[in-house]
Amino acid sequence: MNNTTCYTLAELAGILGGELHGDPALQIHSLATLQSASEQQLSFFANSRYLQQLRHTRATAVLLTPAHLADCPSAAIVLPDPYLAFARVSQLFDWRAPAAPGVHASAVIADGVVVPADAQIGAHVVVEEGVVLASGVVLGHGCVIGAGCVIGQGTRLEANVTLYPNVRLGAEVLINSGAILGSDGFGFARTAEGWEKICQLGGVVVGDNVEIGAGTTIDRGALDDTRIEAGVKLDNQIQIAHNVVIGRDSAIAGCTAVAGSTKIGARCTIAGMAGITGHLEIADDTHVTAMSLVSKSIPRAGVYSSGTGLEPHQQWKRNVVRFRQLDELARRVRKLERVVELYSTEGQKHDGC
Amino acid sequence: MNNTTCYTLAELAGILGGELHGDPALQIHSLATLQSASEQQLSFFANSRYLQQLRHTRATAVLLTPAHLADCPSAAIVLPDPYLAFARVSQLFDWRAPAAPGVHASAVIADGVVVPADAQIGAHVVVEEGVVLASGVVLGHGCVIGAGCVIGQGTRLEANVTLYPNVRLGAEVLINSGAILGSDGFGFARTAEGWEKICQLGGVVVGDNVEIGAGTTIDRGALDDTRIEAGVKLDNQIQIAHNVVIGRDSAIAGCTAVAGSTKIGARCTIAGMAGITGHLEIADDTHVTAMSLVSKSIPRAGVYSSGTGLEPHQQWKRNVVRFRQLDELARRVRKLERVVELYSTEGQKHDGC
Amino acid sequence: MNNTTCYTLAELAGILGGELHGDPALQIHSLATLQSASEQQLSFFANSRYLQQLRHTRATAVLLTPAHLADCPSAAIVLPDPYLAFARVSQLFDWRAPAAPGVHASAVIADGVVVPADAQIGAHVVVEEGVVLASGVVLGHGCVIGAGCVIGQGTRLEANVTLYPNVRLGAEVLINSGAILGSDGFGFARTAEGWEKICQLGGVVVGDNVEIGAGTTIDRGALDDTRIEAGVKLDNQIQIAHNVVIGRDSAIAGCTAVAGSTKIGARCTIAGMAGITGHLEIADDTHVTAMSLVSKSIPRAGVYSSGTGLEPHQQWKRNVVRFRQLDELARRVRKLERVVELYSTEGQKHDGC
Repeated sequence: MNNTTCYTLAELAGILGGELHGDPALQIHSLATLQSASEQQLSFFANSRYLQQLRHTRATAVLLTPAHLADCPSAAIVLPDPYLAFARVSQLFDWRAPAAPGVHASAVIADGVVVPADAQIGAHVVVEEGVVLASGVVLGHGCVIGAGCVIGQGTRLEANVTLYPNVRLGAEVLINSGAILGSDGFGFARTAEGWEKICQLGGVVVGDNVEIGAGTTIDRGALDDTRIEAGVKLDNQIQIAHNVVIGRDSAIAGCTAVAGSTKIGARCTIAGMAGITGHLEIADDTHVTAMSLVSKSIPRAGVYSSGTGLEPHQQWKRNVVRFRQLDELARRVRKLERVVELYSTEGQKHDGC
Repeated sequence: MNNTTCYTLAELAGILGGELHGDPALQIHSLATLQSASEQQLSFFANSRYLQQLRHTRATAVLLTPAHLADCPSAAIVLPDPYLAFARVSQLFDWRAPAAPGVHASAVIADGVVVPADAQIGAHVVVEEGVVLASGVVLGHGCVIGAGCVIGQGTRLEANVTLYPNVRLGAEVLINSGAILGSDGFGFARTAEGWEKICQLGGVVVGDNVEIGAGTTIDRGALDDTRIEAGVKLDNQIQIAHNVVIGRDSAIAGCTAVAGSTKIGARCTIAGMAGITGHLEIADDTHVTAMSLVSKSIPRAGVYSSGTGLEPHQQWKRNVVRFRQLDELARRVRKLERVVELYSTEGQKHDGC
Repeated sequence: MNNTTCYTLAELAGILGGELHGDPALQIHSLATLQSASEQQLSFFANSRYLQQLRHTRATAVLLTPAHLADCPSAAIVLPDPYLAFARVSQLFDWRAPAAPGVHASAVIADGVVVPADAQIGAHVVVEEGVVLASGVVLGHGCVIGAGCVIGQGTRLEANVTLYPNVRLGAEVLINSGAILGSDGFGFARTAEGWEKICQLGGVVVGDNVEIGAGTTIDRGALDDTRIEAGVKLDNQIQIAHNVVIGRDSAIAGCTAVAGSTKIGARCTIAGMAGITGHLEIADDTHVTAMSLVSKSIPRAGVYSSGTGLEPHQQWKRNVVRFRQLDELARRVRKLERVVELYSTEGQKHDGC
């Protein structure tokens, strides 16, 4: 894809604001890792553990800091943050085509919905009544947009995304396939006979520049809205329950679940498969490691973890048994301490006699 | 949505069977929390931690028990269970429109399938041969209903639900978007060269009044059926493996997985991200807390947990190392106890000499 | 379904290469467990815990080893591996119909894509430009196949599968509904203001005979491809991040997540809800138990686990508190040991005086 994309090193140095070392006319057709790069490929060096790979790379050029220019066997573009530069240059070579304006003949658009001239609506899309679509919106094949949704400028939904009614998306949002926004929050009241459904009357509000991963689900609020603030990045298969608020620029990795009404601060990073229970408040700039269970509020920023480390299974089984006895073990140690302390005192008396 | 919905307090008190304190002609247009409620909104008070919010609410009326009537600055409807009353009143203000009977022109319905006059079939739906649809069924846009499925009265599938062949749903079931019922159970026999597939010949049976969350998957049985009994509530992204049975009125929160052939009793509540391994039996009325691993049967009702609590990462790392040595630590404590016991006996001899 | 499928015992013994004990003309119409089997049903005995069920089965015939022929009240087919034989015979009774060649009128196929005469394309399918479809491909209703994808011979996608552009599938692959291949890897570079997207320029490559479960997501690589090697079996709701490699014939159970760039060896079995962090190497033939966190490479084959066992909640709460103090407890035990050791030496001196 994009086999025709081509930049000269001079052009790339200009775009990235870097200092070019090498032939400005060299052509770059694609990007690659230091190890796999070859002719007409650009790579980057951002982690010192790959120093040997830098020294032996066959890339045509490498993005790097001044400190490693001497280690680079090829042309180079020198910049303060090569990883960020790589991110920017990756966007030049992206496989996503620009929006191809138009509405596929098989799409079903409710009467009264205005499709902007530069929007792209894929095959078998359904757009219900009252939906508002801003300029440059792309709706992938098979998307369903419920009544009254609002989709901001330049926002793109990949194939088979589902928005329930009354979901509002900001500008430049990217939603991956299979994501579902606005599904029912899990709310029921007990009755003598079972459960009575609490209809979920709130919506979902997503800020600008949010990215949502494949298969992620975000429930609508019970009364107020569920809110994903601007710049938030959600990976695949995340579950966000009703009335959760995720603060600006927080990033959450795959398969994490956040239970109802929890508020996550700004700039947090939550690793994969973490579980965050309901009605908590997580401070700004908090970091949670993989598969941790957060069951209390976190009032102070920091790095937090739970769980145990991996062990050979037989050893683990013995330790698991001991964990069940841990409180008892601690009491036994306390008792030992008391006895030994007593002897220590006694001993001094003996010594003194 | 439903901006035209409106009830007087007198009407609501009548519907809910509560005692009205205040002007019966006051109009309620929507519901809100105590904190955010304002003019023409109804709220509820069901948790004493929100007492201050009750005292300062600007709601037009509040659902509450007799004990808190004195704390309420507005009109009130007094009832024994305000939370349950709130659930019931939420249904009056639901955004889900009643079924709009009819079959969208883009739906593909196999020959011979009878669509009841009051059923609603959305755009781009596919209904395969032999499907039986009861009165009042709603199939959201993009749903695929495999051959031979049976869907009970008033059951509603939101957009993009997939039923494999031979899935049978009871009456008044609600299935959220992206849910998949009847996918292959994970069954393979080892061979010298790899794995031989065990075709999954059973089906899925879902009882009346079941609710299934967005992105939840329920595999078909290997030989017998996978069974979700009446009144069960499943949240989003739950995985139910082949031949699992979930007993009546049990409720399971998001991202929990239940492995093959496990039987969960009636009225259980399983919190989010729990993992339940295969071939277990879980007693009726069992409660499992978030992110617990259930790897043995639970013969007696109770509340069960596993895992460790959240800690600052550096402290956690030290404790994780100690967990790996826990069996050894317990042995060392036992040895200390023996030595101290010996000394204690010796000491008594010394004292006696 | 398949109510018309019927084999005589003689036919089945021939197909399976087993030794027939009983009337060769007996007819088998379906398969069942030992417990539920009745007339015209075949069962199997592969686990000694079901010996009583074998002795009382009402199956017409049973697959078993020579050792248990005497316990079988019915006809039998004797073979060395009854479970494998059951897998093979299950395929004879599968509900999946053979491909019904043809393209549904509602499918949208890009110009230039060649659909083989024996391929089956369901309703509302979208196939974008440049897609290559091999002989015998089945695309279920609602599937979306992105530009440039390659789908191998006999590969079958169930309803509502999404392939992003540039996903390559081998032959005889089975992908269950809701699976998404080629979604964006989760890659961002930090900036002063938030996050800069790293466009994911690699693809996904899936080998022959792979099976992928419902709702499973496999991200495209950042630069190189994400690779699922031949014979791999992935259960439902698994998350495979960018640039992961899963080695030949490995099997992974539901809801497990594998983070970016991790390489899992061949013939591994990973149980459900395991979390495997990024940039690790897992040795061939490694087994990981349910809900374990793998946060370091595993250089040697073996069985590995993490976590704690299930306990009554109150007891667990006490032990969780003690876990937080575990490092301190270990230090206190060490101190006790030193004191006791000292006393022991002192004691010997006393004894010697």
